[in-house]
Amino acid sequence: MHILVLGGAGMVGRKFIQRLARDGQLGGRPVDKITAQDVVAAEKPEGAPFAFEAVVSDMSVPGEAEKLVASRPELIVHLAAIVSGEAEADFDKGYRINLDGTRYLFDAIRAIGDGYKPRLVFTSSIAVFGAPFHDKIADEFHTTPLTSYGTQKAIGELLLCDYTRRGFFDGVGIRLPTICVRPGAPNKAASGFFSNIIREPLNGVEAVLPVSETVKHWHASPRSAVGFLIHAATMDTAAIGPRRALTMPGLACTVAEQIEALRKVAGEGVVARIKRVPDPVIDGIVAGWPRDFEATRAPALGFKAESSFEEIIRVHIDDELGGNFVR
Amino acid sequence: MHILVLGGAGMVGRKFIQRLARDGQLGGRPVDKITAQDVVAAEKPEGAPFAFEAVVSDMSVPGEAEKLVASRPELIVHLAAIVSGEAEADFDKGYRINLDGTRYLFDAIRAIGDGYKPRLVFTSSIAVFGAPFHDKIADEFHTTPLTSYGTQKAIGELLLCDYTRRGFFDGVGIRLPTICVRPGAPNKAASGFFSNIIREPLNGVEAVLPVSETVKHWHASPRSAVGFLIHAATMDTAAIGPRRALTMPGLACTVAEQIEALRKVAGEGVVARIKRVPDPVIDGIVAGWPRDFEATRAPALGFKAESSFEEIIRVHIDDELGGNFVR
Repeated sequence: MHILVLGGAGMVGRKFIQRLARDGQLGGRPVDKITAQDVVAAEKPEGAPFAFEAVVSDMSVPGEAEKLVASRPELIVHLAAIVSGEAEADFDKGYRINLDGTRYLFDAIRAIGDGYKPRLVFTSSIAVFGAPFHDKIADEFHTTPLTSYGTQKAIGELLLCDYTRRGFFDGVGIRLPTICVRPGAPNKAASGFFSNIIREPLNGVEAVLPVSETVKHWHASPRSAVGFLIHAATMDTAAIGPRRALTMPGLACTVAEQIEALRKVAGEGVVARIKRVPDPVIDGIVAGWPRDFEATRAPALGFKAESSFEEIIRVHIDDELGGNFVR
Repeated sequence: MHILVLGGAGMVGRKFIQRLARDGQLGGRPVDKITAQDVVAAEKPEGAPFAFEAVVSDMSVPGEAEKLVASRPELIVHLAAIVSGEAEADFDKGYRINLDGTRYLFDAIRAIGDGYKPRLVFTSSIAVFGAPFHDKIADEFHTTPLTSYGTQKAIGELLLCDYTRRGFFDGVGIRLPTICVRPGAPNKAASGFFSNIIREPLNGVEAVLPVSETVKHWHASPRSAVGFLIHAATMDTAAIGPRRALTMPGLACTVAEQIEALRKVAGEGVVARIKRVPDPVIDGIVAGWPRDFEATRAPALGFKAESSFEEIIRVHIDDELGGNFVR
């Protein structure tokens, strides 16, 4: 099968493609070719048993989506997005990429017609929800985002459902939890500390905790995120019905619980590298974020995530650190 | 003040402008001018104490919205839309008018900048909700429309909230109940019978009831719809917060209760003009529609509707029939 990945050079895109390189198949069908689109060139994983094409393009330029779908990939995984902070800083760019780009893609698929009806996996985010919340956000809670990014993702979900209902493709929308532990260098995203306080101490480096330990948030590992994509790509969609945007399972835990898990997995010496430097601005931002969910539909449909933060840390040590860390 | 009404030749637009012609003011401020845009020429109400301009244009043509807002109207009422049936029959046209047209309007306002921040009243519909529902749909229930029209309206609500949050205008989104009794000739909309079975018998004409009398639906009169617009145009929006899309109050009643109210108001002879001709197709469509709401935010913010179907019938007899009907 031929798979098109939009945003294929990003963290989740790379891991998804690496997993397919290892598995060689998806849902029991051999993967023949992957086309990975992004604004920078995606790299072919070593030893990948499939043809690989990296396309560098801007999805928000009319005509680019048509080129990508012209060869009729059977599966399209749409991960391309301007992230929250940038979509807030550059209003036009956020709408151009996250809304127009998505619509160009959907319309390009529709324009082919002629029985072409690919599976389309669209990644959304818990940013579609905006405070105030209930303690646990249920699957039927309304999407009232408080960022332009969240607005664009919520609109993408609505379009996904309507285009699916109309029969133009077979869409599955997955609302990702915050991905933790995020590999790579610390970034300045307001959510960065959730990963920084685990990843950096395991590397022997100090990390700053800018918020109270009582802050609760909703997490899943990068490995789970890839698992969500694979399940969304291969599941029987008849079971979903018309509500195609699904809140993925995740793990709600407080920062204190994150630290306690780190202590159990890696010891007191590692935990001692977390420095408390309260930042009221970040505290204020985080206060508006979802804390916990009652995600019942996605698990019932077979989506799985970690059940403890210790497990999330162990996944990180296994997948990113080759099983080792700095004690 | 200068008011721009998009969709000013439609039923609700005309009644809104007629009401302003009677009142001469809005929220205590004299109305100096009304610009009424539509695809056909809106008519100036007789004796209107304000300047009136009818603009015939297609909102989905780039550049048209800019022309409409160039004179910086203080209030913009956006009623223009392709209705449900047509948006379902013509996918491109629905998205072009209901989504692109709305976005062109919002972006044209934003492009003026320079402190221009009008009140913008956007009309949405209970079609943003899609079955299955709870018995009463709460304000926090998610919007999972089952029509392209409902999808386009739900997207408009999301854009309204985001553009308001970003400070480009001061938006209020009002989700209208089914408007009943709708004046004019019977139409072929699947919802038409809710009005037909009241309006036609009062005119001395037979009307067809295609569904079971147990069907329950959510109604408000045209007079209430105009009241919603006026309140949305003049209320203190600080009290709303960022969730600007409000389910308007309405009256839930069954067809049996509609008929009983008609009997009380107009007598057995009028009711006898209702003919039962079951139509399984219409029955099936109506089964997917919202039946009842627990709309708490809008009434708390001062929006008001009828509290009995008898009242809805009396409003129709007063406003459309000069107080008389055919016994």
